[in-house]
Amino acid sequence: MSAPRTAIIGAGISGLTTAKMLADYAVPFTVFESSDRIGGNWAFGNPNGHSSAYRSLHIDTSKNRLSFRDYPMPEHFPDFPHHSQIKEYLEGYADAFDLKSHIEFENGVVHAERRPDGGWLLDLQDGSRREFDFLVVANGHHWDPRHPDFEGEFTGTTIHSHDYIDPRTPLDFTGKRILIVGIGNSAADIAVELSSKALENEVVLSTRSGAWVVPKYLAGRPADELYATSPYLPLKWQRKMAQLGQPLISGRPERYGLPTPNHLFFEAHPTQSVELPLRLGSGDVTAKPNVSRLDGDTVHFEDGTSQEFDVIVNATGYNITFPFFDPAFISAPDNHIRLYKRIFLPGMDDLAFVGFAQSTPTLFPFVEAQTRIVAAYLTGDYALPSAAEMEETITADEQRYTAHMVQRPRHTQQVDYFIYEHEARTKELPRGHARALAGRAR
Amino acid sequence: MSAPRTAIIGAGISGLTTAKMLADYAVPFTVFESSDRIGGNWAFGNPNGHSSAYRSLHIDTSKNRLSFRDYPMPEHFPDFPHHSQIKEYLEGYADAFDLKSHIEFENGVVHAERRPDGGWLLDLQDGSRREFDFLVVANGHHWDPRHPDFEGEFTGTTIHSHDYIDPRTPLDFTGKRILIVGIGNSAADIAVELSSKALENEVVLSTRSGAWVVPKYLAGRPADELYATSPYLPLKWQRKMAQLGQPLISGRPERYGLPTPNHLFFEAHPTQSVELPLRLGSGDVTAKPNVSRLDGDTVHFEDGTSQEFDVIVNATGYNITFPFFDPAFISAPDNHIRLYKRIFLPGMDDLAFVGFAQSTPTLFPFVEAQTRIVAAYLTGDYALPSAAEMEETITADEQRYTAHMVQRPRHTQQVDYFIYEHEARTKELPRGHARALAGRAR
Repeated sequence: MSAPRTAIIGAGISGLTTAKMLADYAVPFTVFESSDRIGGNWAFGNPNGHSSAYRSLHIDTSKNRLSFRDYPMPEHFPDFPHHSQIKEYLEGYADAFDLKSHIEFENGVVHAERRPDGGWLLDLQDGSRREFDFLVVANGHHWDPRHPDFEGEFTGTTIHSHDYIDPRTPLDFTGKRILIVGIGNSAADIAVELSSKALENEVVLSTRSGAWVVPKYLAGRPADELYATSPYLPLKWQRKMAQLGQPLISGRPERYGLPTPNHLFFEAHPTQSVELPLRLGSGDVTAKPNVSRLDGDTVHFEDGTSQEFDVIVNATGYNITFPFFDPAFISAPDNHIRLYKRIFLPGMDDLAFVGFAQSTPTLFPFVEAQTRIVAAYLTGDYALPSAAEMEETITADEQRYTAHMVQRPRHTQQVDYFIYEHEARTKELPRGHARALAGRAR
Repeated sequence: MSAPRTAIIGAGISGLTTAKMLADYAVPFTVFESSDRIGGNWAFGNPNGHSSAYRSLHIDTSKNRLSFRDYPMPEHFPDFPHHSQIKEYLEGYADAFDLKSHIEFENGVVHAERRPDGGWLLDLQDGSRREFDFLVVANGHHWDPRHPDFEGEFTGTTIHSHDYIDPRTPLDFTGKRILIVGIGNSAADIAVELSSKALENEVVLSTRSGAWVVPKYLAGRPADELYATSPYLPLKWQRKMAQLGQPLISGRPERYGLPTPNHLFFEAHPTQSVELPLRLGSGDVTAKPNVSRLDGDTVHFEDGTSQEFDVIVNATGYNITFPFFDPAFISAPDNHIRLYKRIFLPGMDDLAFVGFAQSTPTLFPFVEAQTRIVAAYLTGDYALPSAAEMEETITADEQRYTAHMVQRPRHTQQVDYFIYEHEARTKELPRGHARALAGRAR
């Protein structure tokens, strides 16, 4: 039995990593990319509109943590590379493993239809229709802006952080009264950049759930180098330990005027920012609770205060969207999609998702771990359990990774990289291999 | 015996504090200020050219540490107030104690001459000449730029940090290759501001002595709130303790590419910056050792490397200058001037200096402690020891405060506020009082 002809949607981190792994395992594949370049989100100014990178963006994971296991970051890169360096790294990766010859650029998948007896019919950007045995969805989940749904109407300018480039683009952010909604990493970065005194803006940050802000450096080392979840201790204990250590790391957000978080430390993704606490503590950014109502140029907040603004920047995250699937067929309402090991949709044996996770601390090596499972599956070295068993495991994993978290579209796909990688290597791959052998014997 | 008619030169922090204290003690005084406003260095854009504040400047001491003892900072101020808030605070201070009625604005002292039998003749900006019994020099020491003396010539633009305002002023800092010389707080702030990716500059920071960079916040609290020197333990031990704790606070500067400091932690003023290590660790600022030679648009460094630049910003500190004294009469070559308690010039009993110190952690309450001695002296409640005894004490104090430090113009006037204030209160004032009583009895 030869390996199934596989189509990969997208040549971002997830698509490239899948391509590299399938090439290693000699699985025949083609990558369909809507843009003229690789990199997806990390291709700043990507003509397909799928990059959310702003000019000043540096990755929030240190290079050694971030690195693919099989392709280390260049020695000369700084601790926290700039987006242009991540792009350079991905270009190097694609060249080193000769991936570009497998990519069809400016030929994205417009529509994917599953044939009743399995296999896929893909309608492509160039108007052609192609057939494949297997489909890998790797179109990413940081490109379709999610806006908040506030009561009332704002008559100033509203943009999403997805469209923010720099203090002059897409609009002139000088001498403006600016409200940033959200407190994720983009919200923090944009609030810091726009509150530079040189721009003479007035910057307010509004947050619904609050956040624990952690520094990128601790004691002079990238903070994430000092932290790794252990697969040998209960996750609950480890979260408790982190909560006990938190005061030493960053103190309470209320100290900087931020609202009390509606969750304990480590119960939701912390915000990584060295500068936001400083800007709050210097009065350059002021914090407000959630928006209660919009009214012309006035924004009302839940503490009863109100203020006038020229611009609102919604740094409120992204939707998981599959524009090539009929929504009735596959979709992720409220960013929720039940996937076995965040890869397989139970009952559909010719489809895999790669990169659909909010992985702590980072996505790069996580995706590598996922593609190892996908490649083993495509070469027959790994078999899936029954659909019923998969459903049970999905529920148990969701319980483990997300039950303690605030229920938000952002956290529906939370996983812990260290646990995931360890279990994939020591449990899931061997068990899937045993299942495959049992299947062959039958 | 009535109190001597006193002239105060300058209405910055030191002049205002002296004025307030003299008013409390009913000493008649007049303040001569060359500008049209109070605040000196903290009057951003001061028309007399004596402010070194840039638009984004926030003070590096937290408000509770900074506060005068007798005039607390407003509750609503942030931890690290902006220069405009410091100015507002000083305005409030001047109003609360009715100081402005004692200030002659735009009437600075042009020349001060000591009469052979004591007392002063002052030539003023308005052309008049006035007589006083006593002179307080409070003209500050952060206004006369000190440039480095490098071999060769640079054909690009050279400015001093004193003239830096913001990324558009005094010149357009966009798309430029910029060398910042120095690693004090201004150097760090300017390097951070100009390395903002939005400006598309290339920023290099060159330092001769290196520096230990400490954060403004530790564990979520202003770092300086966690630190105070104790007058009850040997200073040497306390420095040793700080050195042992340093790795936990900020790690080694080499981690960020900075040269190895030529001094131990706490042996010279550390640089306070949350953002500089991040910018270095993100590759947005690169560090170089000292400049060895200038040649056209090329700068050669001591490690043998060289690079081309458009602009050099010398953030290399300030001279202590007394433009109203004949240099042969009183001056501070290499910023060195021997002052008893950083106030009195031995042998000159009708002259006091206020604010001529690099006080750790901050100048404000230090100046307050100094003016308490000056006021007691002017009301006869405090007498000076003999000139010989003063010389001995000056040498001992220099030994204690600066002998362990790198010999640099910057460190000639280093003092520790906590020790100074404690000794002034518990030793110097009571002893001076005893000397005064003994003098009267004679």
